[in-house]
Amino acid sequence: MNGPSLALRQRSLGDPSAEFPLFPPLTRGCPKTSTDEIAYPLEVAYDYARVDRGLFTQEPGTDIARWSPLLPPLEAPTLGEGGTPLLPFEDVFIKDESRNPTWSHKDRLNRVVVSAAVASGAPGVVVASSGNHGASAAAYAARAGLPAIVLTSADSPPAVQDFVRAYGAKVVSVPPEARWPLLREIVDRLGYHPVSNQTVTHTGHPFGPEGYKTMAYELFVQLGRVPAAVFAPTGYAELLFGMWKGFVELQLLGLAERAPRMFSCETASGGPHARALATGAPAAIVELGPSDAYGISGTVGGHRGVLAVRDSGGEAVLVTDEEMRRAQRDLARQGMWQELSGLAGVAGYRRLRRDFDGPVVCVATSSGFKDLGVGTERYPVLENPTLADVMS
Amino acid sequence: MNGPSLALRQRSLGDPSAEFPLFPPLTRGCPKTSTDEIAYPLEVAYDYARVDRGLFTQEPGTDIARWSPLLPPLEAPTLGEGGTPLLPFEDVFIKDESRNPTWSHKDRLNRVVVSAAVASGAPGVVVASSGNHGASAAAYAARAGLPAIVLTSADSPPAVQDFVRAYGAKVVSVPPEARWPLLREIVDRLGYHPVSNQTVTHTGHPFGPEGYKTMAYELFVQLGRVPAAVFAPTGYAELLFGMWKGFVELQLLGLAERAPRMFSCETASGGPHARALATGAPAAIVELGPSDAYGISGTVGGHRGVLAVRDSGGEAVLVTDEEMRRAQRDLARQGMWQELSGLAGVAGYRRLRRDFDGPVVCVATSSGFKDLGVGTERYPVLENPTLADVMS
Repeated sequence: MNGPSLALRQRSLGDPSAEFPLFPPLTRGCPKTSTDEIAYPLEVAYDYARVDRGLFTQEPGTDIARWSPLLPPLEAPTLGEGGTPLLPFEDVFIKDESRNPTWSHKDRLNRVVVSAAVASGAPGVVVASSGNHGASAAAYAARAGLPAIVLTSADSPPAVQDFVRAYGAKVVSVPPEARWPLLREIVDRLGYHPVSNQTVTHTGHPFGPEGYKTMAYELFVQLGRVPAAVFAPTGYAELLFGMWKGFVELQLLGLAERAPRMFSCETASGGPHARALATGAPAAIVELGPSDAYGISGTVGGHRGVLAVRDSGGEAVLVTDEEMRRAQRDLARQGMWQELSGLAGVAGYRRLRRDFDGPVVCVATSSGFKDLGVGTERYPVLENPTLADVMS
Repeated sequence: MNGPSLALRQRSLGDPSAEFPLFPPLTRGCPKTSTDEIAYPLEVAYDYARVDRGLFTQEPGTDIARWSPLLPPLEAPTLGEGGTPLLPFEDVFIKDESRNPTWSHKDRLNRVVVSAAVASGAPGVVVASSGNHGASAAAYAARAGLPAIVLTSADSPPAVQDFVRAYGAKVVSVPPEARWPLLREIVDRLGYHPVSNQTVTHTGHPFGPEGYKTMAYELFVQLGRVPAAVFAPTGYAELLFGMWKGFVELQLLGLAERAPRMFSCETASGGPHARALATGAPAAIVELGPSDAYGISGTVGGHRGVLAVRDSGGEAVLVTDEEMRRAQRDLARQGMWQELSGLAGVAGYRRLRRDFDGPVVCVATSSGFKDLGVGTERYPVLENPTLADVMS
């Protein structure tokens, strides 16, 4: 759409002087800087000198290929991801990512990582996920004509299990701890391209956050400037880091004078990025308490989120299920029904209640249909109803 | 966004010379031409001479206010409706309406009819619906700060019942036959604005299809021309008629040389529009057999669908649940998981398999999350899984 990819190579986030060819994507972290305790992710470097700034006069729309010069090669077909609306709510803006092809932000990432699988000539993709990520990967693989294996666990909501299975992937429900060794075996023995993490601390796919950069570009166009602060639901922090990278690029290209402060919003039941930032570690692993925000609850953090928060002058915020539920109710009463996990950003902003010198964006990542408990309640039928009954 | 509404007045679809002021919206059909057996709907007339054709050089985007000159006044705030992608599938294009604020096409209608409620100074809106329409009306009412009453029945899927309730409306589950007298009472005694039909054959809200016109405009911009044929899931045919009207306007404005043939795709279990067209009646009421396509299954048809099919040289198509299920499976295997009802258009096209001298569009109206049976299956967990198990 807008010219070929200007992606040059992979670069380590552990040491920017450690560079690698663009292919194959290093899906087990940086081989030079990672240790037994900390795995460092890679990112993609571009030939920024060749970027046409006219790219940023486009309106957002439903195909991230409009930003193709600043993405890895998009070899997988679009399902119409991106171009999501920005809606005012209280004193912030909501970036409504439930409006993507599989009704979550994950579609931006999966367009890019399934493209990497296609470009690599892989015979299929494999993903360990019980929710949005697994369904999205299955959808993009199906669209690209690639077989997909989804290793899921039994604890996701029943409707979400149907969702993950809808796209024709091979979906296998296994005990949570069995997922990672199986994933590795499928990668090693079948040559499937992994779209899930394989390292001790999270590194994920080196191309993944590139898809999320498009949200930064869209926000810049939608607001006519970069926001002062961004609050994002944070599990592995690929979303937070991806947006941060996009804003940094806008600065680098001379289009924006500054980048926003980035706020990672994790569940109070865990919070590996908050822990790493508090202790000064490059990444952390924590114990996990109970939370219904299953989409962002994890024990394992990564270095990307630490970089985004620290380098942007942001903060790590921990939010309770109760705070997310309040955000969920209040947003629904403004016409937006979002998944509980997807409201950690709104809950985080409300908890902090800081003044910012410019617009604040909270990312809402996913549809309310994906929540635990949806469809479990039975409502009574009012036989012979009168107006008085209805109004009572 | 693009200037004020050029809406002039209401006009009867029973007799175009019967005209009425734009307000109040005549929500009980045309008072001049309706009889005890057939109720005639009204439509909105515009001052087409004043329409700036530059309107149609805009890209589609997530707010139908970009077409405001050709819509009734939009007094209710947007939730970011419209701007949905057009995706190739086999030899047709899919207009993916699951990408709207409440994940169905209904949002286009409800932006417009809730605006009518706001403009009328109504103290609230009332709707009889068990699914997408009720949830969408509740969402737009919530966004506009208007109370909403949703009269629902107990037979919709449990997840959809949560969905309808999420937006803070007063939702009352009543026996299906109790809905219409209650609706009328709420309108008459409380002054609530009705966003559901109140007449013997369907007339609905006179402004409703105006919202769907925006799909015709978007298709014209997305394809760079009007399609040769459009296949739409058809319940009350507001969608079909609305799109038809939009295409006719494009012709009237000299932007298109022809309008597409419009195909109403109803469940074989009923099909009031097919009946009316077969018998030459202005509208029909039929008996209804069982179907899982609850979103488009109804006994009562209206005159709008008859006009759209007849005047466009289209046809009425009846599709079975089995045909819709096949379309559902095949579309999901291309990465699009749609509601069963929402696939009547694809199923209808496949049943007809006609050659058209130009692009064919099938509207897919809603997300797969809204189907009957979603979330009811339990999948076994594979304990101690091996690679051989996964691949078996």
